Amino acid sequence: MNDAVLIVGAGPTGLSAAHAIASVGRKAILVEKENILGGAPIISGYAKLVPSGEWAKEAIGRMVKRVEDSKLVTIHKGAKVAKVDGQHGNFTATLSNGQTVQAGAIILGTGFTHFDSINKPEWGFGTFEDVVTTTQVEQMVGAGKIACPSDGRVPERVAILLCVGSRDRQIGREWCSKICCTVSANLAIEIKELSPKTDVFIYYMDIRTFGLYEDKFYWKSQEEYKTKFVKARIAEVTRSPDGRLLVKGEDTLVKRPIVISFDLVVHAVGMDPNELNPEIAKVFGIALEKHGFIERGEHYTGTFSTNRPGIYAGGAALGPEDIDTSISHGLGMAMRAVGELSALSQRAAA
Amino acid sequence: MNDAVLIVGAGPTGLSAAHAIASVGRKAILVEKENILGGAPIISGYAKLVPSGEWAKEAIGRMVKRVEDSKLVTIHKGAKVAKVDGQHGNFTATLSNGQTVQAGAIILGTGFTHFDSINKPEWGFGTFEDVVTTTQVEQMVGAGKIACPSDGRVPERVAILLCVGSRDRQIGREWCSKICCTVSANLAIEIKELSPKTDVFIYYMDIRTFGLYEDKFYWKSQEEYKTKFVKARIAEVTRSPDGRLLVKGEDTLVKRPIVISFDLVVHAVGMDPNELNPEIAKVFGIALEKHGFIERGEHYTGTFSTNRPGIYAGGAALGPEDIDTSISHGLGMAMRAVGELSALSQRAAA
Repeated sequence: MNDAVLIVGAGPTGLSAAHAIASVGRKAILVEKENILGGAPIISGYAKLVPSGEWAKEAIGRMVKRVEDSKLVTIHKGAKVAKVDGQHGNFTATLSNGQTVQAGAIILGTGFTHFDSINKPEWGFGTFEDVVTTTQVEQMVGAGKIACPSDGRVPERVAILLCVGSRDRQIGREWCSKICCTVSANLAIEIKELSPKTDVFIYYMDIRTFGLYEDKFYWKSQEEYKTKFVKARIAEVTRSPDGRLLVKGEDTLVKRPIVISFDLVVHAVGMDPNELNPEIAKVFGIALEKHGFIERGEHYTGTFSTNRPGIYAGGAALGPEDIDTSISHGLGMAMRAVGELSALSQRAAA
Repeated sequence: MNDAVLIVGAGPTGLSAAHAIASVGRKAILVEKENILGGAPIISGYAKLVPSGEWAKEAIGRMVKRVEDSKLVTIHKGAKVAKVDGQHGNFTATLSNGQTVQAGAIILGTGFTHFDSINKPEWGFGTFEDVVTTTQVEQMVGAGKIACPSDGRVPERVAILLCVGSRDRQIGREWCSKICCTVSANLAIEIKELSPKTDVFIYYMDIRTFGLYEDKFYWKSQEEYKTKFVKARIAEVTRSPDGRLLVKGEDTLVKRPIVISFDLVVHAVGMDPNELNPEIAKVFGIALEKHGFIERGEHYTGTFSTNRPGIYAGGAALGPEDIDTSISHGLGMAMRAVGELSALSQRAAA
């Protein structure tokens, strides 16, 4: 039996799992398809994370450093798992870089893919330069300046449109992306901090700042930073004669059409299943649920199990997830992997 | 150094942690203040759990049995921790039953307290017999019959009022209780399955069926089970001349007063900090956050840490939490406890 653990994906989930495996003296093999570690928060350049308020670069950076510094973690960057043979206790994985690795268990922290706003064309992304995504605004916040891409001016009025690629049957995204409401309430605060004269509007269906995010982000954004929350059904984003953008829709609270002009329109993009999931399912021999996320096994005594023994999945691979929960999933999967390998080796010894 | 782990609270979080500790051959000491194991889902008699659809008794029952059957888990029921001495690696805890236990680390899965509806008197609980809580309806579902407590009749019309003890500054509950929207959408389905002729209305501020719960519970409840979702601000619950209950409020979508009569009114009660948290904080020497939940430490490399080294907190002790996430927190805390004890013993040996 091999007691090393193969971890696929070096975002918050995989980094958390890799450190955990090493923390109990076991070998972890971390495979990441990109050439840098850190996952979406690093690759997409997130600004301050929800709910800690820490910069992604520092927070996730600490997780990366801890794993890079560990003698027990072997890292393969720019590599994918191409083939998995064997079974729980004795897996052999062939990587796309030609190498072969051995492990007793496999942890999938393969995450998600940001919704591509081009699939919601009536909301102006791809047509108007000043229609951007939350990811782009995170990058602006990181760079310390909010500006309209078309001419570099500081926007007087910004609209954040929630649920772009979420809760939308028309485009085959029925799920809610869980964290965009909170991220957007926080982003409105960050915009206001950088540019106090800018007015920020958030267009929503429901505000889903669950748990302690309610007063920490929603109320704070509204009360201290004067973010205007508009419950509306958006019809389209067009250009007004003066060159600004027009957000057209129906205010669902007063049941009247509303048309407001903005300098910058931000799509709060949702979380799609990892676009590689069909390939991941095939390579690892695991099932996907109906939306294309990885299918979960039993919830109570088999948490993080997939349908294949010895292969675990957690974080945003299972559905839209926040960073804190993803990190806890990484720890939880590491625990399951180590525990079940112990049971296997006890059975083998008996 | 002592490598046993003391776990406080035998709900989903603590049960998950106890099994995890035992799964790697370590001793777990589980202390539960009640005389039965299982936490809120068992003690309050929950029906089918969200999102698995499994009966609480079976699902959580498996977790209980696994821990009871483990030779590595020592269980103290009907006992609280009265005093904690020592430090990370060598804690000594004195229990209320007079026993003393030794452990290297402590995991707190001390959970929450259901909001007591009596603190929202204008909504009729405590005044009218047919105003009940979600917990009471869970028990009815468990018993296989939905009935009005006043006379045992099957209700023709049921109102579920969301956010009772949540998102309510007036009564000092600013937080959102995270899971009541999903639980209530599911409860409406269960009511309808038991009594197809009953009409169920859900009064809400925002529907927060985050992630994959959106179509699995909200859409399903609305589309397949005809649950009526009413966005409203409730003013009061009174009795109508015919003896039924009147829910009075303002429909915030049409900005008009609405008064509808119901046979049964259900308070979707929120999650308060465990009412014992001030005592818990004192006994364990840990901090509480402003609402009274246990304060979290660093989120990225110190997940589940409290302000006292070697003591971890997770699940609903940190804020309103769902069962699945609580179980993953239990696993994650066990991983952290084992990992940090390994590091301690390595340092001691060096």
